[in-house]
Amino acid sequence: MRPPEELISYLRNNDNFLLSIHIDPDGDALGSILALGEALSPVGKRVIMHSRDRIPVHYAFLPESNLIIHSLNTCPGDIPALILIDCNSPQRAEVDPIHFAYSIVIDHHATVNHFGDIRWIVPDAPATGLLIYYLIDSMGIPLTETMATNLYTAIAADTGTFRYSNTNAETFHVSAQLIDAGADPSYISNKLYNTWSRSRFDLLTHFLTSLEIVDSVAIITATKDIIRDRGALPEDTKNFVDFPKMMESICISVLFREVGHDLWKVSLRSKGSFDVARVAAEFGGGGHRNAAGFRVNTDIESVKKKLLHYLSRITSQRI
Amino acid sequence: MRPPEELISYLRNNDNFLLSIHIDPDGDALGSILALGEALSPVGKRVIMHSRDRIPVHYAFLPESNLIIHSLNTCPGDIPALILIDCNSPQRAEVDPIHFAYSIVIDHHATVNHFGDIRWIVPDAPATGLLIYYLIDSMGIPLTETMATNLYTAIAADTGTFRYSNTNAETFHVSAQLIDAGADPSYISNKLYNTWSRSRFDLLTHFLTSLEIVDSVAIITATKDIIRDRGALPEDTKNFVDFPKMMESICISVLFREVGHDLWKVSLRSKGSFDVARVAAEFGGGGHRNAAGFRVNTDIESVKKKLLHYLSRITSQRI
Repeated sequence: MRPPEELISYLRNNDNFLLSIHIDPDGDALGSILALGEALSPVGKRVIMHSRDRIPVHYAFLPESNLIIHSLNTCPGDIPALILIDCNSPQRAEVDPIHFAYSIVIDHHATVNHFGDIRWIVPDAPATGLLIYYLIDSMGIPLTETMATNLYTAIAADTGTFRYSNTNAETFHVSAQLIDAGADPSYISNKLYNTWSRSRFDLLTHFLTSLEIVDSVAIITATKDIIRDRGALPEDTKNFVDFPKMMESICISVLFREVGHDLWKVSLRSKGSFDVARVAAEFGGGGHRNAAGFRVNTDIESVKKKLLHYLSRITSQRI
Repeated sequence: MRPPEELISYLRNNDNFLLSIHIDPDGDALGSILALGEALSPVGKRVIMHSRDRIPVHYAFLPESNLIIHSLNTCPGDIPALILIDCNSPQRAEVDPIHFAYSIVIDHHATVNHFGDIRWIVPDAPATGLLIYYLIDSMGIPLTETMATNLYTAIAADTGTFRYSNTNAETFHVSAQLIDAGADPSYISNKLYNTWSRSRFDLLTHFLTSLEIVDSVAIITATKDIIRDRGALPEDTKNFVDFPKMMESICISVLFREVGHDLWKVSLRSKGSFDVARVAAEFGGGGHRNAAGFRVNTDIESVKKKLLHYLSRITSQRI
């Protein structure tokens, strides 16, 4: 995989960038921005890394993650170029494009918009981290141990440590390079999967014992009250949606998380050919075939009913 | 990694083998025996594959697994060579070495015995499947899709899909070769992790809500009655021992499974530098630093007390 020449050339010939990632940042977004931020910095550029949302506690181990800023108010003015990473519209990052004379998009989410003067979007790539690896490599910048750790985390998080259908031989070749450069697979996996608090663990077992199952769809409903009552954090529900898929009979798993009054963040996960990105799009969201999501501002029972209706369409088309 | 020349030469110059694996076979043992069995068969050898125990349902998807026999009584006599795979003593496979004029051991478990005319034991290898890959490659036998699927499963199972501390860059290089030869990472991961019955899932949630936690040790006690009452199978408890490790505060996880009257199979899992193989050895068992086990024939409360005593020694030496 080779980045566009104009991207390499622009990064070489300019030296003032704002890097930004999508709201609700995940391992791929964070690992990618941190690796590119570090790669560009030593070559005399001014690089500011921005995430509107704070870093989830599970990702606080990522090297240099304390350098990411969360408000553009404190950001020195006059940055000519915006680089969107792991998303492809300024809305997803909550930055105002009006402040930037030039914009670059590096992403692996399929998109219907056309934002960006330079757009490098590879929907087949398992993670944006893979694109950043090739970009750093193509620019001839030596890979440090911290870059390798950030990029390995990006890839591991977005492939479920090489379990999802986006995993291919190339993912393994690149990961081997990252290990050679110092990434430690078990250290990173431990940080990703084995640093739960007791209250997070108890919250999971509560949800798993009270699953709603409708045909081949499993639903977890995480209200603010339940999360608070167990002394857990809203972000503790991350990955909960993956657990019901362990059952052979479950094709699609859904997590509703209450984020405000009648305001829900909905995560969808599916197996194999069941395409939840299409369903998420019906609700104004997006994502990938096997992992997508959306937000709704309405009462939960009517959303569930509508969602189950859409999902039954795709589960009845079982291949 | 290069197999001993005498091993390659012996396999080339002889053509009558019994391949056998350890009792209670896991993904590494099964994937390894099946791949080597297939690799040797087309070159005009007579190869019999043996596992004393039947194939767990979770591994029934492995190509050619129906060719494995479970009793040596039905086995035609006069097989000169025994090849032990993923174990290093005939006792572990429950075969009587007296019937064999020659014996070979291919394993990655550290060992104190000296059985075997040819011994290829690499304790640093993450999986025996990796050794079998190099053996097949060194013999110049082309890798088929079924061999690749069996070997990828062996490696994925013994590294927890590349999460355990035995995972290194070489594991990734070999896995990439296996994917190029036809192994499908997400298909195999789905078979390994997402084919649970509802009763298995309910059994897990039951155990997770009733965990015993003593300092940094978590204990699951799976009696025959609890398993039966939930309509689950004894082998359904496989991997349950990994779940409590999700908690940051848990360094060691233990699963007691009742296999007879006052007869228990004990599985130990640990994080990082905590060495449970040493503890298992105190009880006559063995394994690896982070995954070991033993069997005991005594009342559970006294075993627990003794085990917690040994475990407290290593958890108090936290690095």
